[in-house]
Amino acid sequence: MENSINGFAGGRASSTSNNGGVDKGVDFANYFCTYAYLYHQKEMLCDRVRMDAYYNAIFQNKQHFHGKTVLDVGTGSGILAIWSAQAGARKVYAVEATKMSDHARELVKANNFEHVVEVIEGTVEDISLPEKVDVIISEWMGYFLLRESMFDSVICARDRWLKPTGVMYPSHARMWVAPIRSGLADQKMTDFESSMDDWYKFLDETKTDYGVDMGVLTKPFSEEQKKYYLQTSMWNNLHPQQVIGVPAIIKEIDCLTATVEELLHVRANFSSSITLENTRFSGFGGWFDVHFRGSSQNPARQEIELTTAPSQDNGTHWGQQVFLVHPPLRVQEGDKMAVSISMTRSKENHRLMEVEFTCEMRQSSGTQPRPFTKKFFIE
Amino acid sequence: MENSINGFAGGRASSTSNNGGVDKGVDFANYFCTYAYLYHQKEMLCDRVRMDAYYNAIFQNKQHFHGKTVLDVGTGSGILAIWSAQAGARKVYAVEATKMSDHARELVKANNFEHVVEVIEGTVEDISLPEKVDVIISEWMGYFLLRESMFDSVICARDRWLKPTGVMYPSHARMWVAPIRSGLADQKMTDFESSMDDWYKFLDETKTDYGVDMGVLTKPFSEEQKKYYLQTSMWNNLHPQQVIGVPAIIKEIDCLTATVEELLHVRANFSSSITLENTRFSGFGGWFDVHFRGSSQNPARQEIELTTAPSQDNGTHWGQQVFLVHPPLRVQEGDKMAVSISMTRSKENHRLMEVEFTCEMRQSSGTQPRPFTKKFFIE
Repeated sequence: MENSINGFAGGRASSTSNNGGVDKGVDFANYFCTYAYLYHQKEMLCDRVRMDAYYNAIFQNKQHFHGKTVLDVGTGSGILAIWSAQAGARKVYAVEATKMSDHARELVKANNFEHVVEVIEGTVEDISLPEKVDVIISEWMGYFLLRESMFDSVICARDRWLKPTGVMYPSHARMWVAPIRSGLADQKMTDFESSMDDWYKFLDETKTDYGVDMGVLTKPFSEEQKKYYLQTSMWNNLHPQQVIGVPAIIKEIDCLTATVEELLHVRANFSSSITLENTRFSGFGGWFDVHFRGSSQNPARQEIELTTAPSQDNGTHWGQQVFLVHPPLRVQEGDKMAVSISMTRSKENHRLMEVEFTCEMRQSSGTQPRPFTKKFFIE
Repeated sequence: MENSINGFAGGRASSTSNNGGVDKGVDFANYFCTYAYLYHQKEMLCDRVRMDAYYNAIFQNKQHFHGKTVLDVGTGSGILAIWSAQAGARKVYAVEATKMSDHARELVKANNFEHVVEVIEGTVEDISLPEKVDVIISEWMGYFLLRESMFDSVICARDRWLKPTGVMYPSHARMWVAPIRSGLADQKMTDFESSMDDWYKFLDETKTDYGVDMGVLTKPFSEEQKKYYLQTSMWNNLHPQQVIGVPAIIKEIDCLTATVEELLHVRANFSSSITLENTRFSGFGGWFDVHFRGSSQNPARQEIELTTAPSQDNGTHWGQQVFLVHPPLRVQEGDKMAVSISMTRSKENHRLMEVEFTCEMRQSSGTQPRPFTKKFFIE
């Protein structure tokens, strides 16, 4: 026996509501616990694109904070709560599910805002506030926006604690998809094939040396490996030149009005044109952006954007999610593709996602490859 | 936000009894789930030292199996159950907590033993058998023997289902410790120092660019990193020449009579002499062996040993656990050390361990370095 008992795995925010009876202890073991590590907080705090966006959103729109009450959902180290206080908030409730709350409290004190920022250990689903708030701020975005399903907690916080006149930080979010090229497709296929070669060698040895025929497990082993190598989306920091077609928005979220229901199943049809001469279509890249626009009654003075699009110099810790298609397809500038995408939550873990692409290619040469459907897991 | 929601982390065997009210769902999320992957099963099935030991133990002692009833605790792929059947068992109950049970059932059928081997999905704590058994076989050993605390389940199975005349496979187990030398001590210290250098750079930038003084988190961050880099034991495949002193047995277990109570706190005092000329003492290596000896009434015809000691050619997937001491100490042949070791289970997770070494060195040169106490986490 030998196994990797959950070490650095957990997470930061929500838990019980809106997720069909998830066991809180299991959710903590699987998700929250990562966010209890300062090392992990530091990784997020070192993401300058992320930091700059929130910093500028707050300090270039101080009118949203000055003299106001703020709720920070999943405060982590407490940075957004402290910035809100520095921008003049009268009161900030900083809610954190993990023991990171103790560090946040220390940080607040060391920065002399203990009279403004109140750190509350708990989930927003469980805690109670003495008043409604003017602003809800949160950094809730997971890979490809919705992984982690933490926005559920922000919605819960909004419905319970935001004043009718309140504003959301961020106020809007969008999911993007584009066709890409990537050498990873070949690499992953090689990895898969070499894992199967290994398996067949193992079968032989187990039969010869230990008298047991394991052949019946070839199919499930192959399926398991296929899922791991070929059907699981990958974190990648794409270079802009790897994007070979026009990106499409597949989902727009107004954080003030979004419901959990509309996040449970994200569906879109889009078309894209190949913009590169004679290249390879290896699959799709997925990313997101969020905007800080205030509300229509109370708009931002300076709109701020946080984008996780492929970028040469401004990559983020979110990178992009890459969905590889095998084998890659030779494409030409002007080739069109009609794509349907469908994303649902994994039945086993509501914080993980399953994505299905259906793609029909219309090549300018006149040939028309067979449409294909590919399913992926965001793990 | 970004986090690694539990992917390939889980495990194989026990759950509720003897562990002070562990939540079964959490235990499954943290531990069992790894063992549901064929990839992980294959890793264990490819460990030839492990395979040979169990194979020889069974087939060189067929008299223990012929016409007998057998219980396999945590059967995984079902290999030990099938071997038991091949050795002539009348009936084998193969208990498996994870969905690997489905694969085990298929494998049993494909090898034509469905009339002998009954695969039961469940934990031995929960399931019920129609009869008592002559043999309990199990591969329950974790890193440094007791990590995973799976032997608890074997004890439970034994107390519930083994006939008074029954035998245990394996029948005995021992834990070993020896002083070692290793370049990892320097590497880990460098990693720790570079992580702290990074932290101070981060502090400066966060103060300058984002107006928040994170200095108050330096102590907890440093403690977290120290725990990670310097106080967590490491898997390592030690070369025999890295063992610089006489190994000592710190615990002997008779699998027929052991109790969970005696495993909760392993304590030993031992002495060791340095056997290498002018070398560096970098810490301790820990490993285990198990023996298949049958019982005193029903001894094995051929005693088989499975050892995970440092070996040039016969390494195992268990490797050794390495407990590094900083800074390393220059030692000479003949130097003596008196060591106390104490191992308990982690309060947060009963399958993980905490180990404390107290070491007093008596150098042949006459100088006597200060005794030290070091605490480690087996994660």
